[in-house]
Amino acid sequence: MEICTIGGYEQVGKNMTAVKVGDDVIIFDAGIYLPPLIELQEQENNIKYSEEMLRRIKAIPNDLVLDKLGWTNKVRAIVIGHAHLDHVGGLPYLAHRYPNAEIIATPFTMEVFQSILNDEKISVKNKLTRIKANSTYHIKGSKGKLKIEFIHTTHSTIQCVFALWCSDEGGIFYGLDFKIDQKPVMGEPFPFGKIKELGKNNSVKCLIIDSLYSDTDRRTASERIARNLLEDAMSSVRNKDKAFFITTFSSHIARLKSIVEFGRKTKREIIFLGRSLNKYVYAANNVGMCPFIKKIKLMKYRRQVDSFLKKLNKDRGKYLVVCTGHQGEKGSILDRISKNQTSFRFKNGDNLIFSSSIIPAQENISAREKMDKKLRSLGVRLQTDIHVSGHGGREDLRDLIEMLKPRHIIPAHGSLKQEAPMVDLSVELGYKFNENIHLSSNGKIIKI
Amino acid sequence: MEICTIGGYEQVGKNMTAVKVGDDVIIFDAGIYLPPLIELQEQENNIKYSEEMLRRIKAIPNDLVLDKLGWTNKVRAIVIGHAHLDHVGGLPYLAHRYPNAEIIATPFTMEVFQSILNDEKISVKNKLTRIKANSTYHIKGSKGKLKIEFIHTTHSTIQCVFALWCSDEGGIFYGLDFKIDQKPVMGEPFPFGKIKELGKNNSVKCLIIDSLYSDTDRRTASERIARNLLEDAMSSVRNKDKAFFITTFSSHIARLKSIVEFGRKTKREIIFLGRSLNKYVYAANNVGMCPFIKKIKLMKYRRQVDSFLKKLNKDRGKYLVVCTGHQGEKGSILDRISKNQTSFRFKNGDNLIFSSSIIPAQENISAREKMDKKLRSLGVRLQTDIHVSGHGGREDLRDLIEMLKPRHIIPAHGSLKQEAPMVDLSVELGYKFNENIHLSSNGKIIKI
Amino acid sequence: MEICTIGGYEQVGKNMTAVKVGDDVIIFDAGIYLPPLIELQEQENNIKYSEEMLRRIKAIPNDLVLDKLGWTNKVRAIVIGHAHLDHVGGLPYLAHRYPNAEIIATPFTMEVFQSILNDEKISVKNKLTRIKANSTYHIKGSKGKLKIEFIHTTHSTIQCVFALWCSDEGGIFYGLDFKIDQKPVMGEPFPFGKIKELGKNNSVKCLIIDSLYSDTDRRTASERIARNLLEDAMSSVRNKDKAFFITTFSSHIARLKSIVEFGRKTKREIIFLGRSLNKYVYAANNVGMCPFIKKIKLMKYRRQVDSFLKKLNKDRGKYLVVCTGHQGEKGSILDRISKNQTSFRFKNGDNLIFSSSIIPAQENISAREKMDKKLRSLGVRLQTDIHVSGHGGREDLRDLIEMLKPRHIIPAHGSLKQEAPMVDLSVELGYKFNENIHLSSNGKIIKI
Amino acid sequence: MEICTIGGYEQVGKNMTAVKVGDDVIIFDAGIYLPPLIELQEQENNIKYSEEMLRRIKAIPNDLVLDKLGWTNKVRAIVIGHAHLDHVGGLPYLAHRYPNAEIIATPFTMEVFQSILNDEKISVKNKLTRIKANSTYHIKGSKGKLKIEFIHTTHSTIQCVFALWCSDEGGIFYGLDFKIDQKPVMGEPFPFGKIKELGKNNSVKCLIIDSLYSDTDRRTASERIARNLLEDAMSSVRNKDKAFFITTFSSHIARLKSIVEFGRKTKREIIFLGRSLNKYVYAANNVGMCPFIKKIKLMKYRRQVDSFLKKLNKDRGKYLVVCTGHQGEKGSILDRISKNQTSFRFKNGDNLIFSSSIIPAQENISAREKMDKKLRSLGVRLQTDIHVSGHGGREDLRDLIEMLKPRHIIPAHGSLKQEAPMVDLSVELGYKFNENIHLSSNGKIIKI
Repeated sequence: MEICTIGGYEQVGKNMTAVKVGDDVIIFDAGIYLPPLIELQEQENNIKYSEEMLRRIKAIPNDLVLDKLGWTNKVRAIVIGHAHLDHVGGLPYLAHRYPNAEIIATPFTMEVFQSILNDEKISVKNKLTRIKANSTYHIKGSKGKLKIEFIHTTHSTIQCVFALWCSDEGGIFYGLDFKIDQKPVMGEPFPFGKIKELGKNNSVKCLIIDSLYSDTDRRTASERIARNLLEDAMSSVRNKDKAFFITTFSSHIARLKSIVEFGRKTKREIIFLGRSLNKYVYAANNVGMCPFIKKIKLMKYRRQVDSFLKKLNKDRGKYLVVCTGHQGEKGSILDRISKNQTSFRFKNGDNLIFSSSIIPAQENISAREKMDKKLRSLGVRLQTDIHVSGHGGREDLRDLIEMLKPRHIIPAHGSLKQEAPMVDLSVELGYKFNENIHLSSNGKIIKI
Repeated sequence: MEICTIGGYEQVGKNMTAVKVGDDVIIFDAGIYLPPLIELQEQENNIKYSEEMLRRIKAIPNDLVLDKLGWTNKVRAIVIGHAHLDHVGGLPYLAHRYPNAEIIATPFTMEVFQSILNDEKISVKNKLTRIKANSTYHIKGSKGKLKIEFIHTTHSTIQCVFALWCSDEGGIFYGLDFKIDQKPVMGEPFPFGKIKELGKNNSVKCLIIDSLYSDTDRRTASERIARNLLEDAMSSVRNKDKAFFITTFSSHIARLKSIVEFGRKTKREIIFLGRSLNKYVYAANNVGMCPFIKKIKLMKYRRQVDSFLKKLNKDRGKYLVVCTGHQGEKGSILDRISKNQTSFRFKNGDNLIFSSSIIPAQENISAREKMDKKLRSLGVRLQTDIHVSGHGGREDLRDLIEMLKPRHIIPAHGSLKQEAPMVDLSVELGYKFNENIHLSSNGKIIKI
Repeated sequence: MEICTIGGYEQVGKNMTAVKVGDDVIIFDAGIYLPPLIELQEQENNIKYSEEMLRRIKAIPNDLVLDKLGWTNKVRAIVIGHAHLDHVGGLPYLAHRYPNAEIIATPFTMEVFQSILNDEKISVKNKLTRIKANSTYHIKGSKGKLKIEFIHTTHSTIQCVFALWCSDEGGIFYGLDFKIDQKPVMGEPFPFGKIKELGKNNSVKCLIIDSLYSDTDRRTASERIARNLLEDAMSSVRNKDKAFFITTFSSHIARLKSIVEFGRKTKREIIFLGRSLNKYVYAANNVGMCPFIKKIKLMKYRRQVDSFLKKLNKDRGKYLVVCTGHQGEKGSILDRISKNQTSFRFKNGDNLIFSSSIIPAQENISAREKMDKKLRSLGVRLQTDIHVSGHGGREDLRDLIEMLKPRHIIPAHGSLKQEAPMVDLSVELGYKFNENIHLSSNGKIIKI
Repeated sequence: MEICTIGGYEQVGKNMTAVKVGDDVIIFDAGIYLPPLIELQEQENNIKYSEEMLRRIKAIPNDLVLDKLGWTNKVRAIVIGHAHLDHVGGLPYLAHRYPNAEIIATPFTMEVFQSILNDEKISVKNKLTRIKANSTYHIKGSKGKLKIEFIHTTHSTIQCVFALWCSDEGGIFYGLDFKIDQKPVMGEPFPFGKIKELGKNNSVKCLIIDSLYSDTDRRTASERIARNLLEDAMSSVRNKDKAFFITTFSSHIARLKSIVEFGRKTKREIIFLGRSLNKYVYAANNVGMCPFIKKIKLMKYRRQVDSFLKKLNKDRGKYLVVCTGHQGEKGSILDRISKNQTSFRFKNGDNLIFSSSIIPAQENISAREKMDKKLRSLGVRLQTDIHVSGHGGREDLRDLIEMLKPRHIIPAHGSLKQEAPMVDLSVELGYKFNENIHLSSNGKIIKI
């Protein structure tokens, strides 16, 4: 069994891993890395996205390594674990290189993938296979069927799966992006039973594991906690003639559901503003997982948004606005409002809830500090960090390993500094560094 | 109106404030400051507590300043806001100085006061008056009745009250130790209606306000959040033959209630160990606020505790132990166990939940770091910080001021550094430093 | 004696304090506060400076309070302690309001003041009086002479003085911006003898004191240390064909002197680039304190600078460039180079020394992080923080108070949070809060 | 070439590395790890040191791995780089296992080794070889001479060397514990010439490198800086009738030299107190590197020390005391004084300089916080952190690698978290993780 750690092993982003057993290769995830793109956007307008450009600025994984290895033609499938851009966002530019590989994902993830294809006007010829969580799928391999199990997991968007390739040489478990959530608000809780069963049967030879927060000495709280914090934050808004905004992650359907439910109690009309909110809400609806769509109004186009904001400026007590901009991103609704690029002006006593945390890059910290300072100076009442992360802490990771009992561990999802504490945790659990715990970097091969 | 800020204005502890209107003085709180006591205990064994000794080490407020001011004989009442030691712990040693002052508190606070008197073998001759939250009480003053309103508030123990002295010169609102909690698990939610009514009527001339977390830019989460975190933490303990300990604040009756409720689901027998747990649980029961007392077994005496721990060591899967020691305090149950002073030994796979945060003094940080390190090295599975504070953040404080609309503000409950951000907040809200915001220090007088 | 704390008591910037004894008022400092100006510059081009505009954005002290107090006509003198903009930068816009007040400063400070007047095309009619350190000067007061002593002090520019007004009601000591430096590289060491003599004679009734670093538990190191660090940093640059840049504070003449001396050893030609460097270097030269002027070439105008940078790009090993931009300021030489706005391009192996620290505002942190990241990605070898502050730490402040033995203390130069630790220090030294330590805010009066 | 990273690759302490080329093994360093010993001392009195006990508590490197590898009999030499305990302190207990290996070190290092042997009453039969820096030595190998070059380096004690084994398979450079110091106060500056020469000749196949501060983005300052800081700190002590203490690292001979030189100016008699100061001062003197020994009085035995302290208590202005206790270590002079275990009592105005930094373990932080708090409460004037580290920062490490141009790099001296940034630095310099940068852990083998 050989594992090529293509991307996401030196940064948080552009996750991509290829596994080869015999003459068959399966790729897991094909994400994008946004910081170089954002930097470019600051310098140039009207950037034209292309595979060549994205490779040059290193925004997509350097999968050309597979050509050198002679693996490219052996790729039978590309499995995408969930709908976040650092897992699926590179695929539109890379899929054409693997025309015989089918793309496998849950329906929601596939919807998001297709909406990116539409937006970017890209078409792919690969076979698209929608699978369900807790199902088994067989891919045609060089010498027979390749069996993959998809196991439901809990994270911060819907229809997330772990993937387990049950190969002749043992199971390879792709365990990226999860926390152990017993009350996930939408979808099933974390599947303790299934995971333990795999552990008992000694099914897993190698675990590739989300190590982002392996250094934080905690169990990550449930989405239920975020829901309750949100309820308290929203019910503390009592000035009925003032504006009321909430901003959160567009892909976080469960969070949006909570917002709408508590929003209904305010008797305000609920308006969703911004392109990315549209994309994810419609994707969820297309797969039957948007119970709140009839209770909201969605606005996407700039003209429509600006016209609404003009109306809102006069009648601010009538609406609850859910919008983009929680990281202070350029061009987001909140960014445009705070820079006076729309007809709406925040006033003393208006309310703004950030159902998010600042992703700790200097860019975001600085953008949010400026935005927050400006809004506070106008008298806007801010409530920030009404949020719980979707990534497990050290104790979630410990639980997964203890239940799953893999023979080998490969820390993933971050830089060496973020992965190193995963080594310490593994050593605590009896593993040995450079024997059955393997630190890697982008483009390297691990043989087991 | 003159306000003497006797104690708690240079440290977190020994809160005491006296207010004089005409010829009548009312004292609010009479707390103790523990660090000098703990330091003494490290150097000497068998310390005999006495007023003289506590004054010498500055563990109790220096109320002798009232003698100099000629206020001592004018003290008509001592009002205690809630049952924490930094509010009531100094009273046993000071009450005798004010024989004509009645001591006024809620039933639970009074129970705790009396249990300290019993433990320390002190008796006081003052009249003891039990009042209810949301009631009005009249004290005999020099020229007529003095009216005090007691307003329910939400904090981290039960039966906490704000006190408002409706004097001829305007209202003085003693607003220490609260957060705005809409779902407090036990007792009523924060009384928005009453507080707003006081603000509308312009009732409050001066607000003395808890400023401990005036520098933290947040609303403190509800006790409901702690309850949910606890539920998740407790349900994640699945190894049925291993020991299961929880430690929390002994006075936190609502938290203990949650622990017992989730504990019942484990089918383990629930045992409470430690003297301070006994004290608070019985006090709560005596006032009819301990719904869980029949579901637990309480052990107080060392022999009883040690005998139980011996049994536990053999039959570790049978019990859920709730005990003292969350700050690593010397002599607590966890301290004694971790130093091998009992027959119980923690083993690999045992569980320990800290439903608390470390109170950030070097002493505690160091004690807990040592304890945690030792326990981890034994393989004990720790879950820490399963907790939410009882003190409001900057946004809670902002809310209280905006609703109450006091004419003057006196930041309390902390050192100058902790009180200074309260000045900034007040300035944001239109107050002026040294005009109607008054920073003080222990023993000073403010005239309004 | 009444003291009006006009500006600089709620921020680091726009220092201004007025003192009234009998019918005579003396103003100490009249600085500017740059952050609102910088913010404005980000939004608008070609800003026209005016008193009105600077008042509106709160960049200059609100000295209109003196009109309300009836003090304006009584101002006999404006004393400027040293040449930094937060002490002298507001004066050009305010001086006209006090036409009968003479402006008193050391020659270097006066040169800098006049160069600002020239740049901004402002003329003032006030009498300009140049005094020397360690001299006494008499101003005409309402009933006789007002005696002021000027005492040399050590800071991070040249010709800095403390001012002591020896009034009928006792001495008022204006003690802003100093550290106790025994080896200041340029100028005399800190005057222990004089300060102790004042203390012995009980000369000082009130001390207004720099409290910026009252919370840092240290003595600030001497400028000699910065000089040595610089020597090591500069001698570690060994690649002779690569570019070599140094950036530092333009007003820091002693530092520039060290740079030139060590620069001479590199055999490179030393070029100073940027307008503010020109301003301060010529001011120093005009007062005979620029021993290095013949060893450098100064370039000020953009065309001249750009032409030089073009040449440098081809012949990078020939020059040592001293330039502006250590805080990543917009429009500075380093900013323009790093944004490719000049013909010079940094390359792998080029050298850049920051003989400065980042002034901890989010704006600077973010600007420098971006700049540093970009430069590092080009392979530029950075050496940062080759610097020692000019403001004393807690131990310097303790020394000054212990030697000077003032009866009253007013913490200055910062926000409440920065001044509060000065109160703690004073309490340690036996002073009492709100008795003889006085916290203030902008526009308030303290009566002693 | 095989390298066995025996100890110091998972902690800061017990450094030990074995290298095998053909049938010859050379061991570099054999240090001790103190924390488990200190922990033990807290629990038990009169601990008897033994190899068995030290192995059990993991205080010495687990070199039994060499038995398993069959290397033990092939060990030809044990080379010790310098005299610190984490490099030489394990050797007394391990040397007997390698009777045919000669022990090679500089004279000072050997003196310290022998003084430990004397103290612990251990004798070793190995041949002891004293070498000089910048010399070449040949060891008898299985098939011929093994050539080792010793290269002077700069650190925080005297006579430190890098060792380069010029083997048939290429050079192995043991580069632990250094900073690039151009003005080291004692001894020669860092040998740029020699290092560059090795780089030019392509002499180094593998570099084992001190990575302790690879995460700190700086060049470590020269010992000259510490000397100047010390001069300022000592000259700021002016109260001639008060006590004057300085504490520093006992092995830091250059620092002690500076202390004595500046101490002479105070006209006080200079007294050295404490056993470890004696050990290192005599070791330095024995090798002719203690120029100050005639200017001081050394006291070692408790009776002598206590008798002196009694005298000092009465005549405190007469002496300058240099003593142990800068980390608040139990049993040190400062510890005993601050706990009132001697006849000397610190009083208001006494002076204490810490020419050291706190080694950041919780134990030390806590011990020092307690000690400092107590001393401050007595009015002792503390000056802390009058110190510069002996370990290089990221820029020193970058310089060494750029000059030396090794083909492989093995980060050493710390935990994985401390070594991981060394990987990042190496990648910046063109190396590749898991190709020619090798992370290891205790007891592992790296084959090159």
